[in-house]
Amino acid sequence: MVGNVLTLVARAREGDPRSVARLISMVENGDPRLREVAAALAPFAGRAQVVGLTGSPGVGKSTTTNELVRALRRAGRRVGVLAVDPSSPFTGGAILGDRIRMQEHTTDPGVYIRSMSTRGMLGGLSVATPQAVRVLEGAGCDVVLVETVGVGQAEVEIASLADTTLVLLAPGMGDAIQAVKAGILEIADVFVVNKADRPGADATYRDIQGMLSLGEREPGDWRPQVVRATAVKGEGIDEVVAAIAKHREWLEGSGRLQAAHEKRAAVEVEAIALAALRARMGDLGDGTALGKLAAQVAEGVTDPYAAADALLAELGERF
Amino acid sequence: MVGNVLTLVARAREGDPRSVARLISMVENGDPRLREVAAALAPFAGRAQVVGLTGSPGVGKSTTTNELVRALRRAGRRVGVLAVDPSSPFTGGAILGDRIRMQEHTTDPGVYIRSMSTRGMLGGLSVATPQAVRVLEGAGCDVVLVETVGVGQAEVEIASLADTTLVLLAPGMGDAIQAVKAGILEIADVFVVNKADRPGADATYRDIQGMLSLGEREPGDWRPQVVRATAVKGEGIDEVVAAIAKHREWLEGSGRLQAAHEKRAAVEVEAIALAALRARMGDLGDGTALGKLAAQVAEGVTDPYAAADALLAELGERF
Repeated sequence: MVGNVLTLVARAREGDPRSVARLISMVENGDPRLREVAAALAPFAGRAQVVGLTGSPGVGKSTTTNELVRALRRAGRRVGVLAVDPSSPFTGGAILGDRIRMQEHTTDPGVYIRSMSTRGMLGGLSVATPQAVRVLEGAGCDVVLVETVGVGQAEVEIASLADTTLVLLAPGMGDAIQAVKAGILEIADVFVVNKADRPGADATYRDIQGMLSLGEREPGDWRPQVVRATAVKGEGIDEVVAAIAKHREWLEGSGRLQAAHEKRAAVEVEAIALAALRARMGDLGDGTALGKLAAQVAEGVTDPYAAADALLAELGERF
Repeated sequence: MVGNVLTLVARAREGDPRSVARLISMVENGDPRLREVAAALAPFAGRAQVVGLTGSPGVGKSTTTNELVRALRRAGRRVGVLAVDPSSPFTGGAILGDRIRMQEHTTDPGVYIRSMSTRGMLGGLSVATPQAVRVLEGAGCDVVLVETVGVGQAEVEIASLADTTLVLLAPGMGDAIQAVKAGILEIADVFVVNKADRPGADATYRDIQGMLSLGEREPGDWRPQVVRATAVKGEGIDEVVAAIAKHREWLEGSGRLQAAHEKRAAVEVEAIALAALRARMGDLGDGTALGKLAAQVAEGVTDPYAAADALLAELGERF
């Protein structure tokens, strides 16, 4: 049923939403024709500004994303949204509740919205997410918003794919110390103190500003912006959009956009290569090699490093 | 200065806290003698019950851990605690605030407490954490608590190392839907509704019970326990300890403990092998191969899959 890959890519280039959706499904499912898709999309690399948006559950990410889409559309920009659900290694399923709020955009041909899950695909979101971004770039999006739940290591990796990273905080969701603990101070280009109409918002704002003033920066480095917003009322969204635009200008003006794109590509290439190696290791001994070695480690007759060496030796023979 | 590895391991076996600390430092720093350490520790694999403890920032993980340590010590058990900080890829630093609360245990020779960070070590926490668990098993701990911040993919991987996984929730920290979104329903063996004296705790408890009743389970499968606690007052902690013990009994009675240990070992061996492959890929072309390919992808003259193929071809030549 699915047409020729080049036809699909050509249609996606013309803005056909079904073709975009099919290409992203191919990415999610690890379709073998992904190589052809990637080759066809290569020339459009780096066309969009990729904006990562992360924060703890309940902080208002989906509402903020929704309002950002609205504001960007008002400015006439084409927007892609990837809502990345790290629960996928288990359920493969995204919960749809939040997505319903974005229904107002579903009939807008200038917006693509997609919940990403990976159904256990090897390499998971670290392989699938950047390829989905490439599909949306190919489809002519000016901005791609990548929304991730949580602030764990996988999300930090996904943030490394973004040109600009937004970190959402909210009063009462854990204080600024918690933000530092979660490692987000280092990845944020823009902080959004959401739910700014709630008690404690000013304290959260001051805490973040205080910590930023302690951070070490070289002359010419970006100083993360801190913006107050109440996304549910649409307040502060224009300021967030302005901060995103300002960061883009800084990236271009400082010559760091190219470096950001190369870093993104390096992370992607490495993730694809590692996923391939992981698949090859899993296939060794007709799929039994790793399990046999693991059983020896569990018994205490060998150690994990020696077992890994044995696995790598087997892998080397198959190269 | 550091003595012979076998001497260090022997001293750790005798319960010398300095030796335990040194061995864990070697793990964190990716010390080249880790292979010797791992070989010396191999026979003690699987001696401890490994209990993972996770939840969103601010939910009360450190307080709960502290109270669990106290309760387990009252029962005469030797306890290890690893507080895993996923912020490490950037700062390499754990925030000490929470650890201060555990100071009451620092003079207790039956307790080892350690904040884990990995200072950018390849493979990061997925390599270091299980090896640190092995050090604590070797040191004679009956229970090793692994506390992780956040509920992202990396934390899910760390949870796969635990025999028993506790997920902490708190009222007002995001509702049960958020818990499902974060994928934690599938990894939890025991839910702890902490801050149970706060408004909304009963609703959180009911939501979790409701979702568990919808879950599909085969006969003989474990049904996750849900326990109410107010860790800051020490309330409900005995019930949490009882739930952990009950899960251990089920693992042993159902014959699944062996499978859990083999799965843990498989995850470990794979993580070590992948870290080694990643290091080898990073060294290709005197460390320039990945960057050159990434630059071509960023320029749009090649695609990430083709670049990964080229990288793997170079890797194969060096095997």
